[in-house]
Amino acid sequence: MAPWSLAQVAQHNSKTSCWVIIKNNVYDVTDFLLEHPGGADVILKYAGRDATAVYEPIHSPDALDNNLSPSKHLGALEAVAVNSLEEKQPTTGQTADELRVDKERKRMPLLDRVLSLADMEMVARRILSHKALAYYSSAADDEISESRNARAFTRFFFKARVMRPVSKCDPSTAILGFKSSIPVFVSGAALAKLGHPEGEANITRGAFKEGIIQMVSSNASLSPKMIMEAADQSQVLFFQLYKHRDDVTAEKRVRDIEQLGYKAIFLTVDAIAPGNRERDIQSPWVLDEQENGSMYYQPNSADKPQGKVNIFGTAGALIANDDRDMTWERTIPWLRRISCLPIVVKGIQCVEDAILAGEAGVDGILISNHGGRQLEYALPPMEILYLLRQQRPDVFNKLEGWYDECHIVICLIPLLGTDVVKAVCLGAKAVGLGRPFLYAQSAYGEAGVSKLIEILAREITTCMRLVGASTINDLRPELIHRIDWQPMCTKL
Amino acid sequence: MAPWSLAQVAQHNSKTSCWVIIKNNVYDVTDFLLEHPGGADVILKYAGRDATAVYEPIHSPDALDNNLSPSKHLGALEAVAVNSLEEKQPTTGQTADELRVDKERKRMPLLDRVLSLADMEMVARRILSHKALAYYSSAADDEISESRNARAFTRFFFKARVMRPVSKCDPSTAILGFKSSIPVFVSGAALAKLGHPEGEANITRGAFKEGIIQMVSSNASLSPKMIMEAADQSQVLFFQLYKHRDDVTAEKRVRDIEQLGYKAIFLTVDAIAPGNRERDIQSPWVLDEQENGSMYYQPNSADKPQGKVNIFGTAGALIANDDRDMTWERTIPWLRRISCLPIVVKGIQCVEDAILAGEAGVDGILISNHGGRQLEYALPPMEILYLLRQQRPDVFNKLEGWYDECHIVICLIPLLGTDVVKAVCLGAKAVGLGRPFLYAQSAYGEAGVSKLIEILAREITTCMRLVGASTINDLRPELIHRIDWQPMCTKL
Amino acid sequence: MAPWSLAQVAQHNSKTSCWVIIKNNVYDVTDFLLEHPGGADVILKYAGRDATAVYEPIHSPDALDNNLSPSKHLGALEAVAVNSLEEKQPTTGQTADELRVDKERKRMPLLDRVLSLADMEMVARRILSHKALAYYSSAADDEISESRNARAFTRFFFKARVMRPVSKCDPSTAILGFKSSIPVFVSGAALAKLGHPEGEANITRGAFKEGIIQMVSSNASLSPKMIMEAADQSQVLFFQLYKHRDDVTAEKRVRDIEQLGYKAIFLTVDAIAPGNRERDIQSPWVLDEQENGSMYYQPNSADKPQGKVNIFGTAGALIANDDRDMTWERTIPWLRRISCLPIVVKGIQCVEDAILAGEAGVDGILISNHGGRQLEYALPPMEILYLLRQQRPDVFNKLEGWYDECHIVICLIPLLGTDVVKAVCLGAKAVGLGRPFLYAQSAYGEAGVSKLIEILAREITTCMRLVGASTINDLRPELIHRIDWQPMCTKL
Amino acid sequence: MAPWSLAQVAQHNSKTSCWVIIKNNVYDVTDFLLEHPGGADVILKYAGRDATAVYEPIHSPDALDNNLSPSKHLGALEAVAVNSLEEKQPTTGQTADELRVDKERKRMPLLDRVLSLADMEMVARRILSHKALAYYSSAADDEISESRNARAFTRFFFKARVMRPVSKCDPSTAILGFKSSIPVFVSGAALAKLGHPEGEANITRGAFKEGIIQMVSSNASLSPKMIMEAADQSQVLFFQLYKHRDDVTAEKRVRDIEQLGYKAIFLTVDAIAPGNRERDIQSPWVLDEQENGSMYYQPNSADKPQGKVNIFGTAGALIANDDRDMTWERTIPWLRRISCLPIVVKGIQCVEDAILAGEAGVDGILISNHGGRQLEYALPPMEILYLLRQQRPDVFNKLEGWYDECHIVICLIPLLGTDVVKAVCLGAKAVGLGRPFLYAQSAYGEAGVSKLIEILAREITTCMRLVGASTINDLRPELIHRIDWQPMCTKL
Repeated sequence: MAPWSLAQVAQHNSKTSCWVIIKNNVYDVTDFLLEHPGGADVILKYAGRDATAVYEPIHSPDALDNNLSPSKHLGALEAVAVNSLEEKQPTTGQTADELRVDKERKRMPLLDRVLSLADMEMVARRILSHKALAYYSSAADDEISESRNARAFTRFFFKARVMRPVSKCDPSTAILGFKSSIPVFVSGAALAKLGHPEGEANITRGAFKEGIIQMVSSNASLSPKMIMEAADQSQVLFFQLYKHRDDVTAEKRVRDIEQLGYKAIFLTVDAIAPGNRERDIQSPWVLDEQENGSMYYQPNSADKPQGKVNIFGTAGALIANDDRDMTWERTIPWLRRISCLPIVVKGIQCVEDAILAGEAGVDGILISNHGGRQLEYALPPMEILYLLRQQRPDVFNKLEGWYDECHIVICLIPLLGTDVVKAVCLGAKAVGLGRPFLYAQSAYGEAGVSKLIEILAREITTCMRLVGASTINDLRPELIHRIDWQPMCTKL
Repeated sequence: MAPWSLAQVAQHNSKTSCWVIIKNNVYDVTDFLLEHPGGADVILKYAGRDATAVYEPIHSPDALDNNLSPSKHLGALEAVAVNSLEEKQPTTGQTADELRVDKERKRMPLLDRVLSLADMEMVARRILSHKALAYYSSAADDEISESRNARAFTRFFFKARVMRPVSKCDPSTAILGFKSSIPVFVSGAALAKLGHPEGEANITRGAFKEGIIQMVSSNASLSPKMIMEAADQSQVLFFQLYKHRDDVTAEKRVRDIEQLGYKAIFLTVDAIAPGNRERDIQSPWVLDEQENGSMYYQPNSADKPQGKVNIFGTAGALIANDDRDMTWERTIPWLRRISCLPIVVKGIQCVEDAILAGEAGVDGILISNHGGRQLEYALPPMEILYLLRQQRPDVFNKLEGWYDECHIVICLIPLLGTDVVKAVCLGAKAVGLGRPFLYAQSAYGEAGVSKLIEILAREITTCMRLVGASTINDLRPELIHRIDWQPMCTKL
Repeated sequence: MAPWSLAQVAQHNSKTSCWVIIKNNVYDVTDFLLEHPGGADVILKYAGRDATAVYEPIHSPDALDNNLSPSKHLGALEAVAVNSLEEKQPTTGQTADELRVDKERKRMPLLDRVLSLADMEMVARRILSHKALAYYSSAADDEISESRNARAFTRFFFKARVMRPVSKCDPSTAILGFKSSIPVFVSGAALAKLGHPEGEANITRGAFKEGIIQMVSSNASLSPKMIMEAADQSQVLFFQLYKHRDDVTAEKRVRDIEQLGYKAIFLTVDAIAPGNRERDIQSPWVLDEQENGSMYYQPNSADKPQGKVNIFGTAGALIANDDRDMTWERTIPWLRRISCLPIVVKGIQCVEDAILAGEAGVDGILISNHGGRQLEYALPPMEILYLLRQQRPDVFNKLEGWYDECHIVICLIPLLGTDVVKAVCLGAKAVGLGRPFLYAQSAYGEAGVSKLIEILAREITTCMRLVGASTINDLRPELIHRIDWQPMCTKL
Repeated sequence: MAPWSLAQVAQHNSKTSCWVIIKNNVYDVTDFLLEHPGGADVILKYAGRDATAVYEPIHSPDALDNNLSPSKHLGALEAVAVNSLEEKQPTTGQTADELRVDKERKRMPLLDRVLSLADMEMVARRILSHKALAYYSSAADDEISESRNARAFTRFFFKARVMRPVSKCDPSTAILGFKSSIPVFVSGAALAKLGHPEGEANITRGAFKEGIIQMVSSNASLSPKMIMEAADQSQVLFFQLYKHRDDVTAEKRVRDIEQLGYKAIFLTVDAIAPGNRERDIQSPWVLDEQENGSMYYQPNSADKPQGKVNIFGTAGALIANDDRDMTWERTIPWLRRISCLPIVVKGIQCVEDAILAGEAGVDGILISNHGGRQLEYALPPMEILYLLRQQRPDVFNKLEGWYDECHIVICLIPLLGTDVVKAVCLGAKAVGLGRPFLYAQSAYGEAGVSKLIEILAREITTCMRLVGASTINDLRPELIHRIDWQPMCTKL
């Protein structure tokens, strides 16, 4: 019956019949409402209307093809409707935040003058939309876990060695048996398109160019298939799995991933409840106030809720259907049964669970507190790694034979290449970073990703030379000196 | 002889004959001067005059009936006098502080956008009168105990466990055998009417709605009877007793309380001398300067006091007649003798006294330093709890059988739900909060109290899930990791 | 030959013949130049001229009588010269700093509204002349010792005891056998006249009124005799001795002191070299710039000094002739021989010297680092006391029998009465304060001194009650809990 | 063929033929391009042009004579060209930064009013060119090593002793057997001419005047010969060797140094890779923006570099040809073979290497992390010294016999003379300072250097007296008390 008029679409604006327009095509999403990972409410807000502007930055272009049966693709909008929608855009005008972003985008520093991860983040913080920055930068509650994650590095100093030949210095290593130019990988980070139209593909291409491995998030704004297509044929990609609570749905996803050519599965276990990320939750209100002015509390109407509130934020929507009842006994064997890919458990936060993971026979653990975005007052990964090294030094000795033994990586947000070196000295195979790559691709696209890795490579190599190490194997715990006291601040 | 003229009342303006006008009625308070818990001076300031404005926010509506014999209720003011008083109000106009409060009250954020206890406090701090905020927020001396109380949480991190089923997560518990939806109760906090005309009743209703228990202060601005009337028939209330130095007066109060239906007595032992709360003491001067300009020191008149000074503040007035000579040997048996309610000693501040309390056979102890409002450099409750856990782990094992053994609660002001979880992990049955409820009811009345509990419930449940706990019993000391070092501040 | 003309006096303007005018009288100080404790240079600056303005605030009125033989008192200035000098005063006008002080003096808060030592210091800092504040407040180098002195208290918390009868609470004690209303005494502090024309006499009178003991400094701006005259007949005063390097001169001073009725000698041993007090040293330059504008460096004249510089400051001048070669073996026996007063060594800074002092048979030690004004990075007195308690608990057990054993006091600048209580708990007999008394008398004269002691008495009594102590003997080390960790700063 | 026209010179503007004009003379540097310690690129930027302005502040006046064979000295520029160049200078005008410096230079405080090292640095920071300050003050990465270096002092307090004769106090010592008036020497610091036209000669003359020893940097802006010429005949100078990777070139340099009369070789081992000194690297961009406005990133041209970038900074240029493969086994014996001067290894950063140095038979070690300019999170020298004292107290006992044993000095930037005393107490023979001398000579030339040493001497002597030490030998570890806790910040 296509092409459709706007009036026709507008009639389907309820739970019982819900149509939306995406890029001038009409879709019936009524049956999909309950399956939507982000929940039905978010869709219903746009029932009977054009949803392109909010849909695009957080969905893969092939999401409709993958998730909606062809029969629900109702066909194109009529020409006059398309024109009408297009006309609306300019008259609606840009929001204050969009105008700000446009202006800042024209004042980005030359890429060559970005000298450090901190520089890169500073640029990104200026050019990101409020929504994107709120999602990327938010952490749980008072953001204490997050700030502690960063500051945990400051406890570890180097006992640098001199008089060792380092003119040749090779920072390359291997992760789960796959080569990496430096002991760094891209950790899964969702919704890259919020920051840059090409999204995760920027990271895929930059990572390949610089020879490091990308772990792709279940919640990426490009589908696993599209990211694989952006990759080089020889490129190694890992997959970060958020397990669906329905085992059948989950199994389908795992089999798809394996078939697409992903080389390992990182099972996420630290995000079974949405962290309380206030920045992200507040973002819609802030934007609303910018456009429409402030709304104040009316004491008389205190009983009924005023304004719409989503107190679980973006993260809450993304994980709404995930499995909250995973166990060592049930989940790992299930995953082994349906896939022959190596399994890494992502989100280990104490020594005891590291040991249990080893006993469960997984191929690796990823020490992480989800970048401080989940549990407030979670231990910093560096501290967990250090405790593991102190309490169970034995686990680090098994790491020689790939695949034969459980192996340890760590996910943390280094401020400097020295932070990576510290983690490797203490026994991590490699360090995964998420947010810095989101920032880099948001600001400079693929070139930013490339630059970020170059910065890390230079800082890591300089650090290795200055501690007297010419290969990764030279990075030993003996090079680390822990300082437990805090000097006074003095006048200067 | 009523109705009275203003002139007639004005003649009774001395210690020997002291009349005051409250809500257009005349009272002879001469004999009551010495019994007044707030001291005679406060009343004498208004002898022969209308005292309604200062009387109302800090007294229960039934206070005159309860404390003054009918013969001293002298009857109504004559109509012309009433008019004259009412006319005065508008001409006097509002004070600068009242105008500020009115303005701020119209700019309160939507309740649904209050995301945390910190948000709630921020709103309250803006809309409270100077006097109310000074009384609520003041702490002893340099407020070091108070700030340490809050920061003591920052020492405790979680060793979170993963791969445990937590889709079902129940934060409910029981306190002295009475059910509570979360391990939180309202700790006694005085003078709620300073912040909101309905005062403590807001808290009573909100607590019932959300299923937690309120402990009512001896110094509430509503009488124990009125608060009980505001409660649901099935609702559990505890009573915070400030023991009068006269045993007979004290016994009468205890018997009244028991008869009214209160379910436990929390005997306050940490407030036998007024804390030096400078904000509260200075509040009248600040308001005076706002209205009348500054007064400066005149060297020549140095010998005689300049201006009226109350250096014990509101707290000093409230506890002026309390018993300063309580002992384990005398006071607990006395209380046992006159009441069969469970007894909890409120204000335990070291391991030694926790043990003595147990030996004295009380039903519980409440670890507290009175919110940092009494002794400066008192140990933070979290620290006391931790020391108790370290030095006497045995006391925590007796807590299974309700009523059979002494049981431990803790009073502290959590910044986050995680703080509550930490205290429960270390062995507290529940956590009592005072000030946050005063703030919530001041800003949003009953709805604010409800909201506060919802915030805590959400934060506690999220935290429980993320540490791998599905019931309160899963919260064990093993989940806590103490960090004794302080990381450096870095550039970012 | 008096009365003298200004011209006649002006001729004696050199080292070989140096006359000065003080309060319209002429003095020949040629022979005294080398004996002047402040050095010859300071006098020569005014040779042949009127020196009253700089002389008065730092010298005792009887200084000329005591130090200059009658033959050098040359007699009065002629009337016309007196007029000329007086006329000059108004034409010269006041300096910018004097004008500022006058203005601030009129805006001092009511004394009753001074609630704490911090309040008192804040008032004093505003009304003091730049020179006085620089001298009073300056400390060595970067003022790290000074700030650590204050912060050292923050390590000690109370393990408060409850259920102990404290309605009667007596903070009185005895120092060297002399009664004191609270465990506090006035420690020697120099040049009180810089802050108030009546100088040390303010302190003497206030201390008597409140029942505490004053230790008088060798460098007071009133002579020991004049201070004794300001005292009540029954009043106990101690004397702080700066020993002159010439034993004969020193002996004369000791004998004078004993004869005047001082009851103990505090031999100062921590000020044998002038501390580098930059504020004090810079003060003349700052004032000079305020009056005359800035002077800049001229590269061409680099070789010769530009401007006059005194890099030892006021302290350097005061101790220029002191004994730098005192020893336990020589100095204590010498002092015993010439005086039967009890001897206390002031300035003990480590455990080892505390022990040596005891072995030398002195009657007491005063733990002090001179308020942080001498050695930078000296240990805080609280820390020294704590180390002594830890390493040599035995020394505290001898202190029962007055005079029979060495007894320990401590000099430190408490921020709060709780700090005094902490020191007494750890074993100090009493706490000496210097600067707070200088501030109090500068601002409010004797009434300020009285007020300061009242504040301390109230804070000490409140603290004693709240830790469960009714007498000084109840203050035991068991009440103290040391905290060695530093909590994080959080968002609030 | 001289005199040359500008046009003739301009033709030689490439790698294959590269001429430059320095002070109106023409040089053919084609063959020298690859040998240039700063790399070829820096020269090629000025190929065919006048390079005087950038050449002068960082090269020794005799650099062309020493490094370029006479045949490459092509002769003078023709008069008209000289005029043309000179005319250009005024028309070009001064940069904004030069104008700022000129203005600040006229507002420097009187030298006598510089009271501390901090004062001196504050003056220098104002008058230095942006380039000079960036080079002098820059440190690695986030400058954590640098700030920790300074703060490491704050952990060490004095257990001061009293009652010891100190009227005579002698701070003199000997370093490698050569007398020094205080336990301080000038550590090698490069490019003094950036701050003052007379450069390192200012330091040489000031050091001699005050009786301390200068260690001259390989990278000084005056040649070792010219510095030796500026020295007094009796003056002792040490040499800081950056070993060239070519042994023959390196040997020639060592032999030259020995022949010139230098008395010891300090072999630098902690600078084999350029530290990431962001201030220094960014300096050209900042200046460029000041003159030419901002340059922004153009997304379309992302692939090709925009703007010229030197990410190794000045330090990278200076050490480009240094030996990165030195070993204990090869390098020390090689140096012993070609020189009979005492050898000190500069840049020891852990206990293990201190021991290896001793076993390698060197004459001394210099504990240093290069002022925090190389490895980020290098241990502070004070901490290394302290660890050495704790773990290997034996090494300090061998130090009596000069030359017979390895001896320990330390390079650190004291904030105060007390810091020097602390290092000596812990076992350092002397303390080397670099940056403070650069600052002092930049601001006040030789007089500034002299002043700096006087300040240190006064602070050291005062400190020695106040801890009870009359000679350097009295400075023992027993005087030091380590504090591992950090006090709270309080209200004041």
